[in-house]
Parts: sequence; structure tokens; C-alpha cells
Amino acid sequence: MEQYKRKIYLEDKPRSEAREEILATFDLIPEIDYLSAAEALGRVTAEPIFARVSMPHYHASAMDGIAVVAENTYKAHEQNPLFLKIGREFCFVDTGNAIPSPFNAVIMIEHVHVVDEETIEIIEPATPWQHIRPIGEDIVQEEMLFPQGHTLRPADLGVLLAAQQLVIPVVKKPVVMIIPTGNELVEANAELSSGKIIEFNGMVFSGFIKDWGGEPKLHSIVKDEPEKIKEVLLAAAETSDIIVINAGSSAGRKDFTVHIIGEIGEVYTHGVAARPGKPTVLGKINGKIVVGVPGYPVSAYLALEWFVRPLVCKYLGIPEPERQTVTVKLGRRIVSSMGAEDFVRMNIGYVDGQFVANPLTRAAGVTMSYVRADGLLIVPPSVIGYEQGDSAEVELLRPLEEIKNAIVFCGSHDLTIDLLSSELKRARTEMKIVSSHIGSMAGIMAIRKGEAHVAGIHLLDPSTKQYNVSYVRKILAGQDVVLYPFLKRKQGWILPKGNPLEIAGVTDLVRTNTNFVNRQKGAGTRILFDLLLKEAGLDADAITGYDREMFSHLAVAAEVNGDACGAGLGIYPAAKAMGLDFVPVADEEYDLVMTRSFYESESGSQLMGIIQSTAFREQVEKIGGYQVVENPVLKSLFEEVK
Amino acid sequence: MEQYKRKIYLEDKPRSEAREEILATFDLIPEIDYLSAAEALGRVTAEPIFARVSMPHYHASAMDGIAVVAENTYKAHEQNPLFLKIGREFCFVDTGNAIPSPFNAVIMIEHVHVVDEETIEIIEPATPWQHIRPIGEDIVQEEMLFPQGHTLRPADLGVLLAAQQLVIPVVKKPVVMIIPTGNELVEANAELSSGKIIEFNGMVFSGFIKDWGGEPKLHSIVKDEPEKIKEVLLAAAETSDIIVINAGSSAGRKDFTVHIIGEIGEVYTHGVAARPGKPTVLGKINGKIVVGVPGYPVSAYLALEWFVRPLVCKYLGIPEPERQTVTVKLGRRIVSSMGAEDFVRMNIGYVDGQFVANPLTRAAGVTMSYVRADGLLIVPPSVIGYEQGDSAEVELLRPLEEIKNAIVFCGSHDLTIDLLSSELKRARTEMKIVSSHIGSMAGIMAIRKGEAHVAGIHLLDPSTKQYNVSYVRKILAGQDVVLYPFLKRKQGWILPKGNPLEIAGVTDLVRTNTNFVNRQKGAGTRILFDLLLKEAGLDADAITGYDREMFSHLAVAAEVNGDACGAGLGIYPAAKAMGLDFVPVADEEYDLVMTRSFYESESGSQLMGIIQSTAFREQVEKIGGYQVVENPVLKSLFEEVK
Repeated sequence: MEQYKRKIYLEDKPRSEAREEILATFDLIPEIDYLSAAEALGRVTAEPIFARVSMPHYHASAMDGIAVVAENTYKAHEQNPLFLKIGREFCFVDTGNAIPSPFNAVIMIEHVHVVDEETIEIIEPATPWQHIRPIGEDIVQEEMLFPQGHTLRPADLGVLLAAQQLVIPVVKKPVVMIIPTGNELVEANAELSSGKIIEFNGMVFSGFIKDWGGEPKLHSIVKDEPEKIKEVLLAAAETSDIIVINAGSSAGRKDFTVHIIGEIGEVYTHGVAARPGKPTVLGKINGKIVVGVPGYPVSAYLALEWFVRPLVCKYLGIPEPERQTVTVKLGRRIVSSMGAEDFVRMNIGYVDGQFVANPLTRAAGVTMSYVRADGLLIVPPSVIGYEQGDSAEVELLRPLEEIKNAIVFCGSHDLTIDLLSSELKRARTEMKIVSSHIGSMAGIMAIRKGEAHVAGIHLLDPSTKQYNVSYVRKILAGQDVVLYPFLKRKQGWILPKGNPLEIAGVTDLVRTNTNFVNRQKGAGTRILFDLLLKEAGLDADAITGYDREMFSHLAVAAEVNGDACGAGLGIYPAAKAMGLDFVPVADEEYDLVMTRSFYESESGSQLMGIIQSTAFREQVEKIGGYQVVENPVLKSLFEEVK
Repeated sequence: MEQYKRKIYLEDKPRSEAREEILATFDLIPEIDYLSAAEALGRVTAEPIFARVSMPHYHASAMDGIAVVAENTYKAHEQNPLFLKIGREFCFVDTGNAIPSPFNAVIMIEHVHVVDEETIEIIEPATPWQHIRPIGEDIVQEEMLFPQGHTLRPADLGVLLAAQQLVIPVVKKPVVMIIPTGNELVEANAELSSGKIIEFNGMVFSGFIKDWGGEPKLHSIVKDEPEKIKEVLLAAAETSDIIVINAGSSAGRKDFTVHIIGEIGEVYTHGVAARPGKPTVLGKINGKIVVGVPGYPVSAYLALEWFVRPLVCKYLGIPEPERQTVTVKLGRRIVSSMGAEDFVRMNIGYVDGQFVANPLTRAAGVTMSYVRADGLLIVPPSVIGYEQGDSAEVELLRPLEEIKNAIVFCGSHDLTIDLLSSELKRARTEMKIVSSHIGSMAGIMAIRKGEAHVAGIHLLDPSTKQYNVSYVRKILAGQDVVLYPFLKRKQGWILPKGNPLEIAGVTDLVRTNTNFVNRQKGAGTRILFDLLLKEAGLDADAITGYDREMFSHLAVAAEVNGDACGAGLGIYPAAKAMGLDFVPVADEEYDLVMTRSFYESESGSQLMGIIQSTAFREQVEKIGGYQVVENPVLKSLFEEVK
């Protein structure tokens, strides 16, 4: 192992250059699968495909009616009705029937008067070939139906059958071998212990590769042993078309990938000028491209898309799909580094006829930031960022209609919002809730800036001891908003099981030097904690961990759960979910603030309808520590807010 | 059978009304499948899904470096280096490693000076919790990962594994039974005889339903026997969630569907105000919705999308996908009927930075019009049409980038254009050729109106006996175009095998009263035929079939192939493809006219490169009757065209 020295610095090669390099050297001749039409759905034609027969393959009636010899009807007129005898002079035909010789025209049944079983009367002449579908009207024998490189869609299969092409040559799906490496990795069903990480990137890669038209093969987890990795890579080069190795692509002491590829093959790139995703390795072993993707999930998914998708598409002979884009207004300032592209995951809300986007966390290890993202803002290397309020183009990760149908819910985190979201789905509405936990104060600000539909808030005014009203009055003065009483809920101390340090109040935290877990600035719970400190005459400095900020009640509970000397302030169900102790501190009012226009909209009244439904209320109250306000009266915001 | 009277008139119910009616009555409770994460890709969650464990589930290092107790490093400074001993005072950690107690901060390896195997030196303090990923930074135990009704994407599978959710409740795919009916239908591998039609709609329906997330079941072909159809419908109501019956939905004498549904169930709708697709039946049998779709393929596909897709989506609990739209300039006038929606299949070209669209045939029986369409223009019931040059919104049937990369090829039909199209694909360019056969004159007009990139023309000037130049000079006067010599090809009489009527010239057609098959107005071949008539001193009236117009050489050959007394004028390979006789008439020049800007563009020069490639030339010449002009010199257009 000692042969591989730590190499601290990576290249900063432009992504497009790295991409072109491997595309140019990726020159496998695609293999061909011969499939039935049914099996060929979604596959790419490997050769041009020609019609074996015409459709129709005979002169076919285009109408229900009678077949006649047109020339024999020329004298028919209202004043000179023409009587025709069945058999020699006409025959009945339905749509699709063959036109028997010598007939050469069809008269619609609506224009025929049936006199008796053998005789009909017409009062209008027919023109030759009228209402007859000529041979090959749809498909002509020997015509090219599809060129090479065409992705077969449902209607295309019909054409193949109709033209009697029953064995379809399609490009084989390129086999992409996915090799997860790392001593820390365990299978998803393993018992978890400290330092062990579930291997899940392989499953995600497989899904992407399937979606792109490749055939993923997921290798079992390989230990960080250079000889073993070498062996697996060499075997993969024999049995697959493209190789993906995850991870070991960075420059740490266990990052062997680049050294091994260099030893048994060629390295083209080690490090690209893009964030996240920089520590990517691109190389070739025995004619097969190897992509070494970083370990952090978001970096890995991006690197896969940048470098593996174009290879799959090139093999298949199809253009790389482009994502739909949308122009958004940026709700926050976005800072980027010069010289590298930045891929920022964004939440997008459609509020008051405008798309507003805010960045999610940029930590490459936070998978949920990719899962929750509505789009990707790609900041070019030459741009150092954007100001709040700037317009920018965002690539969509979800269909636009889903974004348009989303109720943007922000402010304070509460577990019932998830329930509400599920109830909306159960009610089969097209709406869904997209929530971001930014705290009560930031929630009010988002309403003010037109970035959200609803904000959940619980802000205690120390002077009036009243919840929420004074804050809304002050911050949203002059805006037409409503304050909807939603929940009463219990806030209290979240404590390790059994409350070993016997915490009952804020002074106990100081007495026992507990590791306190705080909430972020502007969160209602933090404002409550500050009020408790103030009432006890204590300084923030006196609290160990005052600066440790979490973004949700559950996150606080999870931290306390990991630390026998921990404590946090939060809602009862968060403590309950983790099996922790809970000491109540306050009964607080968690209200919803929204613009009057949303409140009165169809979406708004559907949402309020679900909040007031028995099903939702019962579910919330089953959690414990909650009470939904029944038939609430909007809180009065007086004169200050019109 | 006589119990079912022909009912000539159908309703004209608005499509949205018909849709809402069946959606309101479609109230099946979706069943649930429990799948592994790998199997759940693309499926829809049936319940909200919560995390079973946190990720990370321990305090993890976010960097390669050393773990320390932050409070013990506060004195470190450049002037006061701090030396720490391994074990008690620090330990090495890699990214992802657990932070052992009592350490509470990580210092990046880049900021550490290793003194010896047991000692390191630092010159900067650490702050508590720096470079440590807190428990649940990504996923917090008990957090809701996905609400009900979420379609699982590749990255979502990773989150499921990471949160140890290994059995995923997803909505069962609704089973859609597809019942093809009709005495005229045969399986695709059958021997074809006159009046027999290959059943292919079932395969197309299956493909659509798969794409929409349903599970298609394709029934074998059912004869037009009311008792048999009744039996099959009743059985389908037991074994499926939605039933599709094709066809018999219209009002002809064999259209039993509506009567049968009325007898054993309920009929909601018979006829919708939309073209094509009007003769649709909507009903319910024993609690299952039945959709009777028309027999003509394009009508059928549209009706399926209008009425079956919303049912599948409602069952799955997902919004119906919307197609991307694009604004186009209309190249032709479009007439529509008042009171009904019109669904017009459109070709879209991207020429000179503008999307230009032209309607394809509106015959509901022409499957290829749907297959070839780039988009659908939906004309509302209140609109009677659009003028040429109007802007309109078109729903895309292909990805926009495919349309943008298409070379719009129009004008005269030639078989080598298909070869060119395939060679472009083989060369792995992103471009493709979209061709429409509108004839030489219309081709020149399309160039003039900026609707096409290239037009293939072969127009003989009777006065100069020269091909193409005079036409381009006249019609494109003042436009900067080039005329590129492409092919020399043989035109001649296309005749039944053995030439039984001994046709050798235009006078023989008159002598033998042959059924002539003509080309459409403006086609070069028709202009040649008219010239032959004129030279022989004959009138068009003298020719039987002069008015029968086909749109391609192959279509002419297919007609002749079906008629022992037939004859047509066309190119050699068309005759050869059908095994017909060919008597040469002229060696003509088939040239390409294009704007100079396209000719000089990258796409243009790639196209010319392929035309001049040996591979292409050899393929063309192998067909017979062709010669590719090698290293051509652009034809001189003199002063008239600058």
C-alpha cells in the first residue's frame, strides 16, 4: 500500500475537455440484438428498417358504402336518379374492405338510397378513386420506415408489425460495470456500527444507467486493497463496455484508483473544474473507458451524468438528452468560485405567477439535497455568482407541471407538514407540498419576498407573551396576509432516555455542563430558548454547544440520541420518535401565515379543507403532543396589516 | 346481429366533459405491491416512507485529517505551535470515519505537520464540531423521505437503502385489458390476402400503457360476433382494472361496441367533439371503465391518450404528464371545423433560428403521419383555423433537441435520401434528416419561404432542355442560394412484370388505354410527363388516370404492382424494388438547392462530406440507375441570383 503516495492536489481540467477526450477514444463497435417488435420498445435501431409489405396492401374502402364503376355513375342527378343492381353494378363495402374488380370508386352509405335487397338508387355521380385508400397510402413496400439510430416508440411498433418487420435489429445495451470500493462499506441489510456506511451509490448508478439505456452490472463491494481492485478492474475490462469505480478517486491516502488505472492502463484526467464532482478520474484499461467517480453521493451522481451518460449515448448512437430549463428569480445570493463550474441544487417555487428559486445545501455528502432539488443552477467558471433577485436559467430535475402544482411551504419545521403532504396526495389532488425548514423568521421573510405560499411560524413575543401576531404585524405591515391558527403543540427539553442529568430547566444545563444542541438563528425554538436564558438571567456563553445549530426538531433529537450528556429544546413527537425523554416547557401556537390571495385560491381552500378533515386531525393527534385548532378564526392583524 | 341497428349519427360531446365523467366514476382502491428498492425504480409510493436510521448514524469526519478536542487547541498559533501526541491527544481520520470520544473537531490533513510517527504539530486552533458531519446531517431517523404518490427516481433508491427501508410499498400497476376485434384482422406473421389487415394497434396500445405506468394485457383477436364480444368484455371486467376495446366504436353496421356496453353495463359517451378520434365509446361494465377506441390508428392513439392515460394516472395517484410545447410559424394555412377540436400532426423544422411547422396528412388511417410527426397542433373548437405565417403553439412528440438537430429536407422524393439519413446516423453526428415529399416545385418554394434547409429538385426546362437552373433563377431570384449537383438518375416507364401491354412511349398509353398513375402537381416527374405529352401532341384528357396522384416513386410502383393494366413514370430503383419492368425515358439531374448560409454551415459541410464519401457513393450506385456526381462544381446561377 505504501507504494501509493498521497497526492494532495488534483487537476482542474475543464469538464467539456475531459468529456471530449474520452468520447474521442471511446470507439467500440456496437453489437446488435435481434428482437421482436414487443421487445424492441424503447430500443435504438441498429440499421435502417424498410417495409416488407405495403399498407394497405390492396385498394381498400375508406368508408362504409357501396363500390361502383365511377364512369357508369356520371349521369346520376337529382332529376335523373340512377338505379344500380347488386353484383354486377355495385357491391356493399365496409371501411377497410377490398374493392373488387372492376369497381373503382366508393359512395358513402349516407348518400345511397336502398330500394330493395338487390337495388340501390343514387342521385350524384362518383369520381374515379373517390373514398378508396390506394395501395401504400400509409406505408409503401421497400420504403424506409426508420433510419439507424431511431429510438422505437409505441406507435413505431405498430408500423413495424404492419410492414411485417418482425425481427428488429437494435443496438445492444452497453454493459456498464459498477464497482463499489471501500473498507467502510456494508450492504444495506447489514447491522450498522460506527464508521460503517451503507453502500447505496451502486443502486443509484444502476438506476441512472437503466434510464439512459445501458445495462448496469453491480459488482459486490471490493475492499481498499490495491491488488484486489486491480484484479477486479482487469476482469471488468473483459466483460463490460464501460467501467465505473466508486470511489478512491480523490487524493487521500486510500485513494488508489488513479494509481492503479495508471499502472494497468492510461489516465486521461484526474480532477475536473466542477463542484461538486471535482475528484473524478478518467482513463482506459484494455480498450475500455474507466470512470472513477467520487464517493460523496451528489458528486458521484453528477460525475456519472457528465462522463458515463455521453458514453452510453454514443454507444447507442443517440443524442444526449437535454433537460428542460426554466428562468427563475433567485431568492438568495449565490456565491461561486472562479475557474470552476458550480452545480447548485435549487428548490423552485411557483408563487404569484413567477418561478422563485433558492439554493439547497451545497454539501456534496447530503444526498437529500439532490433528491429534494427541483433543478440545477450551473454557474459557469467565469461567473463568481449571482445577486438575490437576479434572473437565472435552471435545468429542471422534475417536470415543470409538478413544480407548478407545488405548494411552497416554508418557515418552522413541524412533523405534521409531512402528514399534510401525504393527505394531499391521498385526496388525489394534483397539488403537493414542497417544504423547506428555514425557521419561523425566515418563513415570514419568504412570504414578504413572494417566495412561498405558506409559512409555519411559532414566535413568542416576550413583551406580550402572545404568539406570532406581533411579528406578522411588524414584518408584513402593508401586505394583505392572513394568520391561520393551525396547531397547539408542546415544546420541551429533549433528553437522553431516563434523563440521567436530571434536566428540568435552563439552569440545569449550566449546572451539569450539558452538551446543548441549538437550532438555527430565526427558528422559533431558538427564540424560545433565548427567552428562557434571559428569564434565568443567563448568557449564551454559559451554554456549551449554544453555537451548534441544527435545522429541525428531528435533527436535534438525533444528536441528543447519540450523546448521553446531550440536551435540546424541541417538540414532543421528535423526542418520542427517537425514544428519548421529554420535559414540557411551553404550549405554543404554531400558525400558518399566507397571502390572502393564496388563502382564497382553490389550492388554498383545498389545503384548509384537508387541515380541517377528521382524517388529518386524528392522525396528528395520534402522534401526541398536538392539537389541531378546530374551525379556527383567522387571527386579527388589526389595522397595521390591511 | 340484426338486433343492432346502424346508427349513423354520433354525439359531439366536449372531450373534457367526457373525460371528467369517467374520471369521477373511476374509484378503484389501488392495490399495493411490496418491492425491493431495485424493483421499485420508476414506481409510485403507495404510502409515505420514513427513515429507519439516520445518515450519517454517527459523528463522521467530513475530511481526511486528525480528530482533536477543539478546546485543547485554542492556544495554537504560528508563534506558538502546539504538539499533540497520537492516541490521547489526536487520532488520524479519513473522510467518513467515526470520531472517537472525546474528540469533537477535525483538522484537515493539509493543515497538519507530521513531526514523527507519534507527534503532529498544528499552528491554528480548531473550533468545536468543525469538519464533522453531525448525526442525521443528510437523513434523520423518522424523517419522511417521500410522501405517498412519489415516483421513485434513481437517486431516491439510494436514500431508501441508506435509511434501511428495504421493502417499499408501491401502487400496483393498473391492469389494462386490450381487446382487438374485427373479422378483417390477422396476426402480424399471417399470410396476407386482400381485405385482411394486420392487427397492430394492440401492440401500440401496450407500448403506450407501459410508458404511462400501467400493465397492458393483450387479448387475442375477437371476431365481430356480439355474443363473443360480450363474453370477453364480461371476463375482462373480472380480471382487469381498465378495459380497452378496439374497434367497432363507430356507427356502422358492424359497430356493436356501444350496444353491447349498453346491454351489459352503462354508456356515458358515444362520440366526442374531436377529430380524429370522434367515434369513441366510454362506459362501465361491472365497475370497470371500458373505453371503445376507433379503428383507424391515429384516432385510436389519440383516444387512448385522452381517456385511458388519465385513468392510469388517477389509479397511480400521479398528475398527468404534460407535453413540452413550442411556438411555431405555420408554413401553410390550416382549416378546422367549428365546434370540434382538431388534432393536426405537424412537421417542425428549425430553419434560420425559427421553428416552422407544416401539417402532415390528416387522414386518420395514415399511421406514418403520427410516426413522422414532430408535434400536435390542437385547434380549439372555437377556432376555424389559422393563416399561413400565423404563430401557433404545438405540443411536441419528440425532444426539442432532436428537432433542432434535424436537417429539413424537402422537394422531390428520392430513395437515396433515406440512405443519406442512415449514413448521417452511422457517422454518429447529432444531426438527422427529416424529409417530406412535396415535389420539386414545392421544394423550391419551401426554400424561398425559409421552411427547409435543402430541397431535392429535378425540373426539366422544356425550352432549354436544361435541368433546374432556370427554375431556381426565376423562383429564388435575389436570394443567396446554391445549386449543388447531386445525382444523375434514370427516369422511365414503370410497368407490370413482362410489360404485357408493350408500353414504350406515351402514345402507347393511349393506344392500350392503360391505367396511368400520375404524380402530384409540381413534381418533377409530372412535369416530365407533361412534356412528353406535349411533344407527342396529346391532351391530358387522353390519359386514363391522369388525375390519380401519388406522392412518391414507390407509391407509383406499388399501384402499378397491383394492376396488370397499370403504368407509371418514375425512377429505376422504384421499379426494381417491386420487381417491375422499367423502360428508360430520360437521364435526369437531381440537384440540391439550399441557402448559402446552410451550405456553408457546419451541418451543411458535414452533409456534403457524407454525400462525397466513398461509402455513400458505393451504396447509392449499388441500387442501380444512379450516379453520384463526384466533386461537383456548384451550378452557376449567373447574375439573377446574387
